[in-house]
Amino acid sequence: MTTSWIINTSLQVNYIIKNSHEIFNIENNDILSYCPTNRAVVVIDEKVNSLYKNIIENYFTYHKINCRVVIINGIETGKNLDNLIYLLKEIEQFGTSRKSEPIIAIGGGVILDLVGLAATLYRRGIPYIRIPTTLLGIVDVSVAAKTGINFEDRRNRLGSYYPPVASFLDKTFLKTLEEIEISSGLGEIFKMSLIKDNSLFSLLENHGKTLLDTKFNCEHADEVINFAIQGMKEELENNLWEKNLKRIVDFGHSFSPIIEMRSLVNDSVKSLTHGQAVVLDIILSCMVSYDRNLLSHDDVLRVMNTAKNMNLPTYHESFTDPALLLESLQDTTKHRNGDQNLPIPTSIGTTMFVNDLSYNDIVVAAELFSKFNKEING
Amino acid sequence: MTTSWIINTSLQVNYIIKNSHEIFNIENNDILSYCPTNRAVVVIDEKVNSLYKNIIENYFTYHKINCRVVIINGIETGKNLDNLIYLLKEIEQFGTSRKSEPIIAIGGGVILDLVGLAATLYRRGIPYIRIPTTLLGIVDVSVAAKTGINFEDRRNRLGSYYPPVASFLDKTFLKTLEEIEISSGLGEIFKMSLIKDNSLFSLLENHGKTLLDTKFNCEHADEVINFAIQGMKEELENNLWEKNLKRIVDFGHSFSPIIEMRSLVNDSVKSLTHGQAVVLDIILSCMVSYDRNLLSHDDVLRVMNTAKNMNLPTYHESFTDPALLLESLQDTTKHRNGDQNLPIPTSIGTTMFVNDLSYNDIVVAAELFSKFNKEING
Repeated sequence: MTTSWIINTSLQVNYIIKNSHEIFNIENNDILSYCPTNRAVVVIDEKVNSLYKNIIENYFTYHKINCRVVIINGIETGKNLDNLIYLLKEIEQFGTSRKSEPIIAIGGGVILDLVGLAATLYRRGIPYIRIPTTLLGIVDVSVAAKTGINFEDRRNRLGSYYPPVASFLDKTFLKTLEEIEISSGLGEIFKMSLIKDNSLFSLLENHGKTLLDTKFNCEHADEVINFAIQGMKEELENNLWEKNLKRIVDFGHSFSPIIEMRSLVNDSVKSLTHGQAVVLDIILSCMVSYDRNLLSHDDVLRVMNTAKNMNLPTYHESFTDPALLLESLQDTTKHRNGDQNLPIPTSIGTTMFVNDLSYNDIVVAAELFSKFNKEING
Repeated sequence: MTTSWIINTSLQVNYIIKNSHEIFNIENNDILSYCPTNRAVVVIDEKVNSLYKNIIENYFTYHKINCRVVIINGIETGKNLDNLIYLLKEIEQFGTSRKSEPIIAIGGGVILDLVGLAATLYRRGIPYIRIPTTLLGIVDVSVAAKTGINFEDRRNRLGSYYPPVASFLDKTFLKTLEEIEISSGLGEIFKMSLIKDNSLFSLLENHGKTLLDTKFNCEHADEVINFAIQGMKEELENNLWEKNLKRIVDFGHSFSPIIEMRSLVNDSVKSLTHGQAVVLDIILSCMVSYDRNLLSHDDVLRVMNTAKNMNLPTYHESFTDPALLLESLQDTTKHRNGDQNLPIPTSIGTTMFVNDLSYNDIVVAAELFSKFNKEING
């Protein structure tokens, strides 16, 4: 008599990330083939809606798509359970069917992550489309399969790996972003350059300020975005479900998650965007690297000055608090299943993992963090 | 310049379903290898806990597993968002790490589905173990990868496909079930027999009453359970994520979901267990089949009498209401992405799909349903 059975199978996944100029120009058909029944729930960030309401409405009206439009304020603290449930109720009321009526997400990371999670859950998974309107959305969120919400004061504590059917990247949205949103997106591009792409770093070092000032309406803009996406694709494609917890793309995400979350609710410290928090973590990690004689003094200065040029912070008081840094790292270690797996640069463009960072090492890194900041600020 | 990228990858999945006699006997090591850090959240159905508290506690104490025990009342109406959030907060407070500290679910379908969904979401997926204590849990829930909760009065409207690392089947739990729970589980076995296994049907026809009366402590018990599991495995393994919406295992799940849900909240109709609702749907579907000259008069009587012998209902007023049946089928059709894909038997043990059921066909089926019930009840 059989006493056990093994279920052994595999899920094939493929999705497209496509540059799509003026996605809501009525002559652009990219979305249409994903709407065979001409029905869709469209989730739009409040600010994006205030800027692009007419053009988006006009697009769907022109193409006779029966839409239920849901407006959500895409601020980080809105990436929560309440908004998830609200969105799920809207989808249920619209009566979205199982495979042919995509949820279309238009906004930054918060909207894209929320919609992705709602799409995972509704009927155990319905299709969705990502249309990022921020730089961070274009170079980071739209490439990956992750969805999520914050929960119990933890960043992305609930979520899934559930890719969209398609991500359409329309850089024309960037022109209406605030500068701080451009620099936040530059933070993730900066990360990518440091972990694996020296030539991308050079582009940022030489043109970062212009990219910021022109909001990516300049000579090297496409090149920088495409390098960043290509880098993400290479890192994610073979580890989409994060079976391997040694991920160089976690660079900048080791000390920062708790500090970023607390900065949003604690009035006594300066609040941080995601890209800002990532860059501060990067600079602290460079101190670990410098302390281990991997990065030179000059390398560290180049990293910090490049960040500064892109209006990214090099200093924040939370990153000088060893106890807080340790607490953050310990929570991250739990997320890496008990291993630190701390990515640090071995040079600009190459990375190794550290698993033996002590409290004392953190104290030293925090001191170096202050010292280098004094140096670059004269 | 690249204008699009395709992410193309696959997720390998495998999990074990294992008969495990007396799983909480201290000499049984099945659970232990999944708890390398000796930490686990253990979620137990309230009723199971009242019966087995000592033996379960003793097991974990003996093996020095640091447990956080969470008790949930596993009734169908408890399969909701509130219990999901409660459970997620418990997991967060325990500080479950990412891959080595499984959530252990001990109970019936409600507990197994709730825990599965919490495990999907927490840190985008942590391991969990299913230990079913009901017959339905053993032959159905534990084999599949589905998780879920009811939402907005819809059965399993939110959920995921997220298999456990292991399901351990311990039939010794069956002896403390109430008869109605045994017959509910027999409902899903009955379904499996009708769609694909004539010999399993014969076993139920001849021994169904004994299986019920002895609570599966009789000669053919293991054989029946193993046939049912083997059937589920065959149907699920190549369609675990339900890419193909023509699923013969959906037999019995076409008209019943809304009727089952409403029977739980509407005092004016008799409330239904899942297995009961499935069997009533099966009998109605047999009427469709009879109307199309696929099942004979004698076949239908065999089906109904076999159900009756296992103390499963053959009649419920909601299944005589064509408007309600149509509403249910329409909702199901949306879940099958616009196709009815209604499985009906072509004989006992074989199935076909119908996609042209009209309202008039439903009226006829409902009339036949009443007529046959009059016949078998004399």
